[in-house]
Amino acid sequence: MTPAPTSTFLDACRGLPVERVPVWFMRQAGRSLPEYRAVRAKASMFDIVGDPALAAEVTMQPVRRLGVDAAILFSDIVVPLVAIGVGVELREGVGPVLDQPFRGPDDLRRLRPLEAEVDIAHVLDTVRLVSKECDVPLIGFAGAPFTLASYLVEGGPSKTQSRTKALMHADPDTFARLLYALADISLASLRAQVAAGAVAVQVFDSWAGALTPDDYRRSVLPASRRIFAGLADLDVPRIHFGVGTGELLDLMAEAGADVVGVDWRVPLDRARARLPSDVAVQGNLDPAVCLGPPATIEAAVADVLRRNRGQAGHVFNLGHGVLPQTDPDNLRRVVDQVHTWGRE
Amino acid sequence: MTPAPTSTFLDACRGLPVERVPVWFMRQAGRSLPEYRAVRAKASMFDIVGDPALAAEVTMQPVRRLGVDAAILFSDIVVPLVAIGVGVELREGVGPVLDQPFRGPDDLRRLRPLEAEVDIAHVLDTVRLVSKECDVPLIGFAGAPFTLASYLVEGGPSKTQSRTKALMHADPDTFARLLYALADISLASLRAQVAAGAVAVQVFDSWAGALTPDDYRRSVLPASRRIFAGLADLDVPRIHFGVGTGELLDLMAEAGADVVGVDWRVPLDRARARLPSDVAVQGNLDPAVCLGPPATIEAAVADVLRRNRGQAGHVFNLGHGVLPQTDPDNLRRVVDQVHTWGRE
Repeated sequence: MTPAPTSTFLDACRGLPVERVPVWFMRQAGRSLPEYRAVRAKASMFDIVGDPALAAEVTMQPVRRLGVDAAILFSDIVVPLVAIGVGVELREGVGPVLDQPFRGPDDLRRLRPLEAEVDIAHVLDTVRLVSKECDVPLIGFAGAPFTLASYLVEGGPSKTQSRTKALMHADPDTFARLLYALADISLASLRAQVAAGAVAVQVFDSWAGALTPDDYRRSVLPASRRIFAGLADLDVPRIHFGVGTGELLDLMAEAGADVVGVDWRVPLDRARARLPSDVAVQGNLDPAVCLGPPATIEAAVADVLRRNRGQAGHVFNLGHGVLPQTDPDNLRRVVDQVHTWGRE
Repeated sequence: MTPAPTSTFLDACRGLPVERVPVWFMRQAGRSLPEYRAVRAKASMFDIVGDPALAAEVTMQPVRRLGVDAAILFSDIVVPLVAIGVGVELREGVGPVLDQPFRGPDDLRRLRPLEAEVDIAHVLDTVRLVSKECDVPLIGFAGAPFTLASYLVEGGPSKTQSRTKALMHADPDTFARLLYALADISLASLRAQVAAGAVAVQVFDSWAGALTPDDYRRSVLPASRRIFAGLADLDVPRIHFGVGTGELLDLMAEAGADVVGVDWRVPLDRARARLPSDVAVQGNLDPAVCLGPPATIEAAVADVLRRNRGQAGHVFNLGHGVLPQTDPDNLRRVVDQVHTWGRE
């Protein structure tokens, strides 16, 4: 069925009052769900992404089981890069590993523009399927330029992002061209996802928390802003997410986001104080809390809700993705508690 | 020679005015130095720690080459655990990996008290050698209870500390007993290091930044406080270090530190505003900056110094350890710039 023209999730993203706080979980489609693991026993991550029926199924699994207020497209931030010919292997327990890391200006030619309807046709088919079948809003997604660049430059996951920062400092011109090229790719992907039916988008800058505020402002924000500005005419809520970004929250809003993700390190009231009052927040339960006993989970969920003080513009979520060892029943209980908050 | 009874480093730690800002670097003894790599070509990390002459040599290498204002004992935070029989392998490029991770109350018996003069006699010999031969103050060091616990519970490095947090939530009693046992081990190690000649100490809580302020306050701070309180009678400056701990700075001071380490994510003026005025700060240059060109390094060093606004109680350092690929000449230039700051 077609998503309702409005929803608590979309209203909360827009800072409008809602009857109950909406909730979804990053990585809600994934290894914590037995039905997902059953799919993964037979198909790789890229197999699933390449098969719209399967990707749509996996996207909708958590909506059915958990009762969340939004679905997020099942994909990986490297998918558009793979689609334009960047060689990436998703190594189990490691993450994306590049055949050939990016190291200098000569590598820029490897980043041709994304022709979304051709290059990620299968992804857009998934978006169309989910939009048609799912009764909650679908969030499209893409990587932010810095995080994508750090995959390209490091060649794989890195604890320090030191090669990426070294390039940023040593060759700011190449770094800027790399980030703008990546912004254009993410923007093309997101615009196509919205055209296909996504009614909100989330831009993942998972590694931006490695940067100082000054470096972020000077070298990263302008490229991220290109994505948010390029979506402005579409009238879909734009969520900007990072981890360890407590010192960057104001800048992440300044990039043009309607909603800023807050990880668990920053209590929600402190985060609010660092953000303009017209920006909504998403978060911010520690994912590890969901491994604990019910009483701990309940107290931690209540604490997040209390710190928001009933203000409009709060989408409940974890501060980062669901941990694979999480019991889905705990997630279901979180959803129920958030939905009944203030009604007892 | 015996260290001078005072020094710019010790004065800055105590919040006293200094003629020039003191500077040292975490991991200044390590892979960025060719003379260290020459030693490591023939000896493992544990070989070096177990050989006082070699460990003293490695501890003093950066003092000679870089002109830093303090030496820090070359060791590893797992050394006292290994000394009481915990099986740990230092795996190249990975870090400490445990033979048998800690999982519950039964594992507590594996943590017997540390008899420092017997168990880490070789470490204390190193301290004595360096104290005699080195002309700058020697900083002793130990791991903070949470970070040590996370090595024990995770069994190795972890991106999420999720098992450790799960234990904290599911079995707070065992978690508290584990942390207090580790605090006692670190305290015994530090008191013995001071008796052997260390004139300051640094407690490393490298992974505390994974915690919410509430969890830190409730479940970690009391055990860390035991270490700082247990050192109070020794009249040595106590430095409390963490990474990603921007939201915990006040609590890390509350634990009893004289100096709080600030990573590069939090600009130094913001960090000062979160700390009591009588607490000194250490930091906070992004280690990745030292991979950049001289002009970038100079600007970033000047920015740290400017943000401190000439206040007493600043020890210049990186926000985390020296990256292995750092050119030592860059570190030498940082030292010179810090030392001549305000004198041009």
